[in-house]
Formats: sequence, structure tokens, C-alpha cells
Amino acid sequence: MQSIGNLVERARAGDPRAVARLISLVEDASPALREVMAALAPYAGGTAVIGITGPPGVGKSTLAAALVRELRGRGPRVGVLAVDPSSPFSGGALLGDRVRMQEHATDRGVYIRSMATRGHLGGLAWATPQALRVLDAAGCDVVLVETVGVGQSEVEVAALADTTLVLLAPGMGDGIQAAKAGILEVGDVFVVNKADRDGADQVIRDLRGMIRLVEREPGDWRQPIVSTVAVRGDGLRELADAVDKHREWLQRSGELDRRRRRRVRDEIEAIAVTALRRRFGDLHGDARLDTLADKVLAGEFDPYAAADEIVAAL
Amino acid sequence: MQSIGNLVERARAGDPRAVARLISLVEDASPALREVMAALAPYAGGTAVIGITGPPGVGKSTLAAALVRELRGRGPRVGVLAVDPSSPFSGGALLGDRVRMQEHATDRGVYIRSMATRGHLGGLAWATPQALRVLDAAGCDVVLVETVGVGQSEVEVAALADTTLVLLAPGMGDGIQAAKAGILEVGDVFVVNKADRDGADQVIRDLRGMIRLVEREPGDWRQPIVSTVAVRGDGLRELADAVDKHREWLQRSGELDRRRRRRVRDEIEAIAVTALRRRFGDLHGDARLDTLADKVLAGEFDPYAAADEIVAAL
Repeated sequence: MQSIGNLVERARAGDPRAVARLISLVEDASPALREVMAALAPYAGGTAVIGITGPPGVGKSTLAAALVRELRGRGPRVGVLAVDPSSPFSGGALLGDRVRMQEHATDRGVYIRSMATRGHLGGLAWATPQALRVLDAAGCDVVLVETVGVGQSEVEVAALADTTLVLLAPGMGDGIQAAKAGILEVGDVFVVNKADRDGADQVIRDLRGMIRLVEREPGDWRQPIVSTVAVRGDGLRELADAVDKHREWLQRSGELDRRRRRRVRDEIEAIAVTALRRRFGDLHGDARLDTLADKVLAGEFDPYAAADEIVAAL
Repeated sequence: MQSIGNLVERARAGDPRAVARLISLVEDASPALREVMAALAPYAGGTAVIGITGPPGVGKSTLAAALVRELRGRGPRVGVLAVDPSSPFSGGALLGDRVRMQEHATDRGVYIRSMATRGHLGGLAWATPQALRVLDAAGCDVVLVETVGVGQSEVEVAALADTTLVLLAPGMGDGIQAAKAGILEVGDVFVVNKADRDGADQVIRDLRGMIRLVEREPGDWRQPIVSTVAVRGDGLRELADAVDKHREWLQRSGELDRRRRRRVRDEIEAIAVTALRRRFGDLHGDARLDTLADKVLAGEFDPYAAADEIVAAL
């Protein structure tokens, strides 16, 4: 087995197999995970993380592929992390969308990785922040994180991304329904895809109305709406321009530093809490928790009193 | 101010204002929360919790109202917890759906409560398990928990519910898209609402195909598919029958005990973890975490090493 140091060096030189191996190591939560993280730390860089989210069927994968094309035309190395749902129903990913990325499969400037969600249903794979660190250290200037666009995932992708693209399309239900989904709140740039279809104007009008309702201070970012027909590549230049503009704003306003610090704080806290939970499990095992649960079910204890017992024992 | 004991007594006698007051106390995480939980513990009962979820636009609220009507006709006291999205975008709930429940507003056998999600975006309000305890102690035989049906929420509602109804409707995108949403995995009973519309047969066929793919042991539950036109009340008797059958199976198979124990375990653990996080915050404050985050951003530390520092300090 190769040393982690050697793998990191090769990844930094642009070797896709080394990148793949490192991501696998962090994804498997292998014993080497901590060593990999420590080895990557000095190479923490300035990858621009772009999240792509939106309801099913709006064309996220097609748009991601088209955006990779546009960004590659502008020069930088691009990474793509596609987060698939790991379905207990099917025992596997249901998406065939990944194939749409295959035009980029032979481009050394593009690294594409599909992340399994490992039971964290509907959400981002837990290893995504770590995989981002790998791609960052490997010199990716931009990483697109595409989620299946359902539920909590859009909140998580917004927490990970510097710039979050929210995709909508005509015919996906009315605007207020989209608002229910909680996806409007997280958008830095709105993309109305399939803009050649009937109803696109209405989606844009609804979005404009929503954006107008947001209270802003002077200097705050005002979300632009970009129309695209991703399957034909229409509007992709405008979209890349809007992403650039948002990045300039992030840097100028200090928001980039704030977002990145918040992200790292959350990451540290999540790792610490996981470690605490594990420690609790090691100390008491499942039997203790079962006993407490049975007491709550029998009405002898309330759940807060039961939790007190656990915390006190730590 | 009334004593908690007095409020609990009145709630148990069916006084809706006492129920409302108790839920407000637990929702506000008021200092009285723990006292309320302790006072309710002896009255932990056998409320059947029915979760209703599905994508936006399938008619969840209408179906919930119709199901309340059907269940009330059969006798028991019914509670409804409707979980609204609390939108940072709008500063409030976007749903007007609650009005559909108003026909039940004057029925003393029905208690309806809309829960705010308090920043837990897309998910169940954190106070929902506690509110369920209030309704349980207040003698509700059945509580419907209706979510906005987006994202992680359907996973959470399944974790809370004894029986989860997953609603679909024709014209909401094709079957595979629904599967992406991860909502099929959590269904105990599938409901094809708006069954009078074109495409309902196709939805049913797709569901049947999916259900066939699931591996089952003898004695496992096989999810039924019920067609409804909730707005006219069609199919509601069949739906209530299917819910009853599922409940019988839950009891017969021992799965009800297993689900309830798992639920209480999760609840205790979540409360304990929250307490630990708070303790960490008390010990170190935000400044310490900021310092660690800055070191990670500067490449001096990796997030695991930073988390070690936190855990070691506890």
C-alpha cells in the first residue's frame, strides 16, 4: 500500500487515480481517514464551491454538465461531486443521470465523483466535506456539488457551498409550492431551466415577486435569475458570469470568510459530537439506553430525566 | 399562572385550552418544559401516530381533513399536528392549507395544532415529539402528523409515526422521480390521491412494480395501495381500514413495540447530545471554536484534530 503522503503528492500533481483513492479512503471512514485529513491540511486552498440544487426533474445533472463545459472553456480545473440517494428501497442508487457527465470522462481537467449517501437518506453524503478537501488540495479551482435536490439536502448543500444555484423549471407545480420546499431561501443565483417551455415566464415572475419581498441592507446580494436551456447550452455563459459576480461580491463583502469560517465551525462541532456519541456508546452500550427507553415507555421516566442520566454518566 | 399539574389535569379532561397551553410551553422550550414532561410521563398512553407525507401538491391537507372526518365517525378523539415550514425567506409560514381543517375547528373531539419549524428548515418541528406526548396524555386515540412533505421531513415523520401514509398523485412527475425523493421507502400505506385524474393508473402500476421489488420475509407487511379523491371523500373508508390493518399487524408482529422503543431511544439520545453541545458552549464559548476554525482555514490544523481538542476539554 502506498503511503498517504505519496498519494497526496500525486493528487496535487493532478493524478485522477490518486484523487479517487483519497476520496475512497475518506468515504470509507477508513483508519487512514485522520491521516489523510492531516496530510491535506497544509494544502487547504481556495476552491470555489458551487452547489446545485432544485426539485427532481428540473435538469440539475444536465445543467451541471453544461456548466462544467462552460467553466472548462474559461480555463480552471473543475471537480464535480454528485450526491446520489442511497435507497433502502432499491438497495442502490436509482439515478442513471451520471451518464450525462460522460463527455467529460476523458478530460484530465475535470474530476467527477459520485458520492453514495450511506443511509443518510435524502441528505448529502457525510463524507462530502472531506471529499471537498481532497479536491481542494488537488488543485481544483471550482467544485460543483450536485444534490438530488430533495429536502434537507438543499439546506446542507447551501451550508457547504460558497454559491448555491437553485434550479426551477416550468411545469413543476406553482411557485408557492416551490417555496414550501424551502429551496428559495438558500439560492444565491436562481436558474430557470427549460426556459423554452410554456410557463417559464410565470416561474420568472413568481421568483421576481419573491425576491422583491426579501428585506435587504444596502450592499446585500440581490439574487439574479438566469434563464437556461441546459440541454442546448443556452444561457450557460450568463450563468457562469452570474456565479463570477457572486464570487466577487462574496470576497468584497467579507461574506466569503464568514461562510467558510461557519462551515469549518460546523464541521468541527459535528465531528466532536460524533466522537461524544461514540464515547457514550462505548461506555454504556445499547442495553443501558434500552433500559431507559423502557422506563420512559412505562411512564416511570420522562425523556429529559433519561437524558440526564446519560449526560451525568459521561 | 396555573400550576403544571392543574394544566395536565384539565388537558386530560379534554380542555382544548389546556392542551394548547401545554403545547405552547413545550414549543417555547420554556423553563417549564421539563416540568411538563415529568408531569405527563405517568400518562404515556397508546396514541396511534399516523404520519402523512408526500410531495407538494398531492393534497396532504385535504386528505388529512377527510381522514379526520372518517376517524371521528368511528369514534375516537383525534389530534392533528401540522408541521409548517418556517421560512427565513418570508419570515413565516407560507401555507394557507390550514384553513381546510376549519370544518373541524368546533369539534371538541378533534384537536388541531400547527407547529412552527423554528429554523429546522424542511424538517419536523423539534417540539413535535413533545407535542405528541401532550396529545397522548390528553387522551387522543389517534394523532395525524402532516408534514409539508419535502425532504428529510418524510424520514423524520416515519421515525415518529407508527403508520406512515405516503401520498402520490398523477401529474407530479414520473415514478422514478418520486423514488428519487426517497419517499417510497418510508411508506406503510401508499395513497394515490386525485385518483379521478388522468395518469392515476400509471402511478398505481409504478407503485406496484416498486412494491414487488422489495424483498420480504413471510409475515412481513406488504404495503397496500389505496386510491382516493380526498376532496370528495372517496376512498377514505378503505384508507382508514388499511390503517387499522397495519396497526393490527404492528401489534401482532411486535413491530409496534420495536418502533416505539427505537423512537424513545432516539429521543433520549437527541436530548442528551443537545445537552452536551450546550455544555461545550458554556465551557468554551464561541471564541474558542472560532480560533480552532481559523487554524483549520489556515491549514495549521485539520478538522479532526480540532474536534479532538474540544472533546478532550470536556
